[in-house]
Amino acid sequence: MNTVGEKLQRLLGKDKVVTDPTIVRLYSREATGLEPDSLPTAVVLAENASDVSRLLAFAYQHDIKVYPQGSATSLSGSALPSDGVVLSLERMNRVKHVSVVDGIAVTEPGVRIDDLNIELARYGYMFPVDPASSSVATVGGAVNSGAGGMRGAKYGTMRGWVLGLEIVLPDENGTVMRVGCKTVKCRQGYDLVRLIVGSEGTLAVVTEATLRIIPAPEAVVTVLAFFDKLADLVEAAVEIKEERLQPLIMEFMDNCTVERAVEFLGWPQKVAGHMLLVSVDVNREATSRVLAQLENIMRRSGASLVYTAGSLDEANRRGLFDLRRSLFPAQVALARSLTGSERVLVYIEDIAVPPSRLAEAVEGLRRLEEKYGLPMMLGGHIGDGNLHPAVGFDPEDADAKRRVEAWFFDVMKLAVELGGTVSAEHGIGVMKKDGLRMELESLGSLKALELMRMIKRVFDPKGILNPGKVV
Amino acid sequence: MNTVGEKLQRLLGKDKVVTDPTIVRLYSREATGLEPDSLPTAVVLAENASDVSRLLAFAYQHDIKVYPQGSATSLSGSALPSDGVVLSLERMNRVKHVSVVDGIAVTEPGVRIDDLNIELARYGYMFPVDPASSSVATVGGAVNSGAGGMRGAKYGTMRGWVLGLEIVLPDENGTVMRVGCKTVKCRQGYDLVRLIVGSEGTLAVVTEATLRIIPAPEAVVTVLAFFDKLADLVEAAVEIKEERLQPLIMEFMDNCTVERAVEFLGWPQKVAGHMLLVSVDVNREATSRVLAQLENIMRRSGASLVYTAGSLDEANRRGLFDLRRSLFPAQVALARSLTGSERVLVYIEDIAVPPSRLAEAVEGLRRLEEKYGLPMMLGGHIGDGNLHPAVGFDPEDADAKRRVEAWFFDVMKLAVELGGTVSAEHGIGVMKKDGLRMELESLGSLKALELMRMIKRVFDPKGILNPGKVV
Repeated sequence: MNTVGEKLQRLLGKDKVVTDPTIVRLYSREATGLEPDSLPTAVVLAENASDVSRLLAFAYQHDIKVYPQGSATSLSGSALPSDGVVLSLERMNRVKHVSVVDGIAVTEPGVRIDDLNIELARYGYMFPVDPASSSVATVGGAVNSGAGGMRGAKYGTMRGWVLGLEIVLPDENGTVMRVGCKTVKCRQGYDLVRLIVGSEGTLAVVTEATLRIIPAPEAVVTVLAFFDKLADLVEAAVEIKEERLQPLIMEFMDNCTVERAVEFLGWPQKVAGHMLLVSVDVNREATSRVLAQLENIMRRSGASLVYTAGSLDEANRRGLFDLRRSLFPAQVALARSLTGSERVLVYIEDIAVPPSRLAEAVEGLRRLEEKYGLPMMLGGHIGDGNLHPAVGFDPEDADAKRRVEAWFFDVMKLAVELGGTVSAEHGIGVMKKDGLRMELESLGSLKALELMRMIKRVFDPKGILNPGKVV
Repeated sequence: MNTVGEKLQRLLGKDKVVTDPTIVRLYSREATGLEPDSLPTAVVLAENASDVSRLLAFAYQHDIKVYPQGSATSLSGSALPSDGVVLSLERMNRVKHVSVVDGIAVTEPGVRIDDLNIELARYGYMFPVDPASSSVATVGGAVNSGAGGMRGAKYGTMRGWVLGLEIVLPDENGTVMRVGCKTVKCRQGYDLVRLIVGSEGTLAVVTEATLRIIPAPEAVVTVLAFFDKLADLVEAAVEIKEERLQPLIMEFMDNCTVERAVEFLGWPQKVAGHMLLVSVDVNREATSRVLAQLENIMRRSGASLVYTAGSLDEANRRGLFDLRRSLFPAQVALARSLTGSERVLVYIEDIAVPPSRLAEAVEGLRRLEEKYGLPMMLGGHIGDGNLHPAVGFDPEDADAKRRVEAWFFDVMKLAVELGGTVSAEHGIGVMKKDGLRMELESLGSLKALELMRMIKRVFDPKGILNPGKVV
């Protein structure tokens, strides 16, 4: 008898609790491809904060583990469930309120980032955080993962754009409370909002978010350039910053990756070399001047090939973003052709290093590729130093899996050696707990882990909420 | 015998510990004018993290209270010491490193914000957070108070601009550790950096900060307008947002305040009405178009008088910021003339309300002025809803003091009723602990206070660091 499931059905209503193992299994998958140790008992499809509150009070009383879930696009295993109950927020998907005057949008956690932006576009506004998964990633997931994206160099990550939250605590009452404000300035004692942002569902369940919104840029100019020498590309990036441009997007792919992506896309063009893709937002009157300025920097620094576009539409139409967007599908195709297997798993790293250390990072990563014999695709957000090296393998191949895991850790070590961090935007989850410890140890900050564990106990004394993640 | 002082002199060196009561008294003053209950025993002038560490380990062992201090410009009493030791960070005043490529500045806590900006101006860069006290306010103080400023509507507050910190914990070892990263993206477990930002020196002592920097704007246009009707001014502010302009500065003063400030400045001009001051950063090619667009919005909304400036230099030269800058000196002069006393204390409130509630807030504030018979100056950052009503009184006048305190609490109540917050940027300190409780209670979030107290104990188990503040 599925007694927990039945009790939950009595508590919340039959239509909100799924116990069919086939469906439960669907809710136990994660973008990482990790498999749960054991299958959850049920999936709760909450419709409001009160459902969440009753579930958490019940879970507290009966020591049942609860795994909150948005759309499970986590790349660190932070949405991976185990025995217990999956709490899906997908039915809480309303944009409740938009105010251009107050510069806010209030949404439920299940709203997809792209859907929010479609709504905001009606006012000429946008939400600036743009994780690559924005077509499926939810607001609640983005809050919990502290998501970033391509525009991170200019706009930072979720922590700068969440003003207030409604949360539910995993305590005896399933306490529902609001923290933070509706205004950008808010000094409400200790910053509990920012503690929840990036906590990967381990401290509380987010049931509503008040987000800061801004006007969409008037115009965006884009330059796509290719360099034979990596040092020249780095020089171009340095000059952009010295000329006081603040790019919206500054993306990078190394020469091997460009070659593989061009092959994947089946491009007839002769593009080759290290790729630098830069978009800058401008007033419309400045379009041609800034475009010329960017092109000039590229050519002066030694670019062999430069494409330009005076608007986002033009850049999209002419495919200037296509190479960058092909990074992950190209990696999957590469892994398939190398392993001869249809079923491949791609591990995407997510380190950040100070942009001044980029060349050393690329060299180090290519050394690791050679060391482990793992063909790597390498791209990233060079504006903020965030690199996403990726390798693919056949998960049935135990030897390959071991090599990939060793590579994964060595990449994190490289980042820390270069003064960087093991996770820029994907989070710790289960896959980077060792990495987090290594990073903090290298900073002489192991005590921080102790503080984090104590903070976890403050919010979740019984350790029932998304256990085993982060700390 | 001053045994604690002597022990500290032996521990840290004579030149780093002051016990002369006259000097200790100087270090016990605060911008609020609040007086300490009892005088600290000594002032420690730390020169590095190791000094701070030894002090905190000693304080932990001997149960001595420690009050960290930047330049004591707090307006909430968060820098007010009592019996124990003042820890001054003023000698730790070096900008250690600036990198335009990495977009960071690394500074010691005693660096003044203006001095940092003078250094950054050499590169054409700036630190965007600009508290009104930036000529004396320090980086460490700004981190601890979560400071904001005039540019808050566009750039937010300190929490968005601190990437990493070196902190010292008030534990048995005076543990020194680094938290956060050198990059904008950083997912280092729970966000301990943001817990320290705004914690008002109650969780740890900041001994180094890695700050995010950005290019200074290419050009800034400014419009100063006066409106007979407050509703027209609000309409203009709404139109600015609907036309998708994102002002760097959007400041407001109501008509009574303008009248008092004009008198204070001795202006012959006939400016009168509610004041709206707007600056927008633009590409230089867009200067005249955006300026015309702003002027147009003002006139269309009913402004009776509009001044414009196409650059910051011109705006400064023509005195467009003078009225706004005179707010506090004018309040002091007003209080002096009303009380007939030279020694007046000015209480500056620091509420925020959603900008859409501005008109209601002004009405409510003028009602409270009448209720308590306290002539009020009213200005604020309308872009982010942050209002600073201020009243002055003779601190010897017990009746006036009682009325001011009642007014102070009623202003906070008004903010909460309008969906706002009791403290936008000045913090809780000792003056707003009641207000914080009231705000959280109105949100149904009293449990948040409990969580905050537990977090305080996680960092400071003996409660020796800046006790009695925030929670």
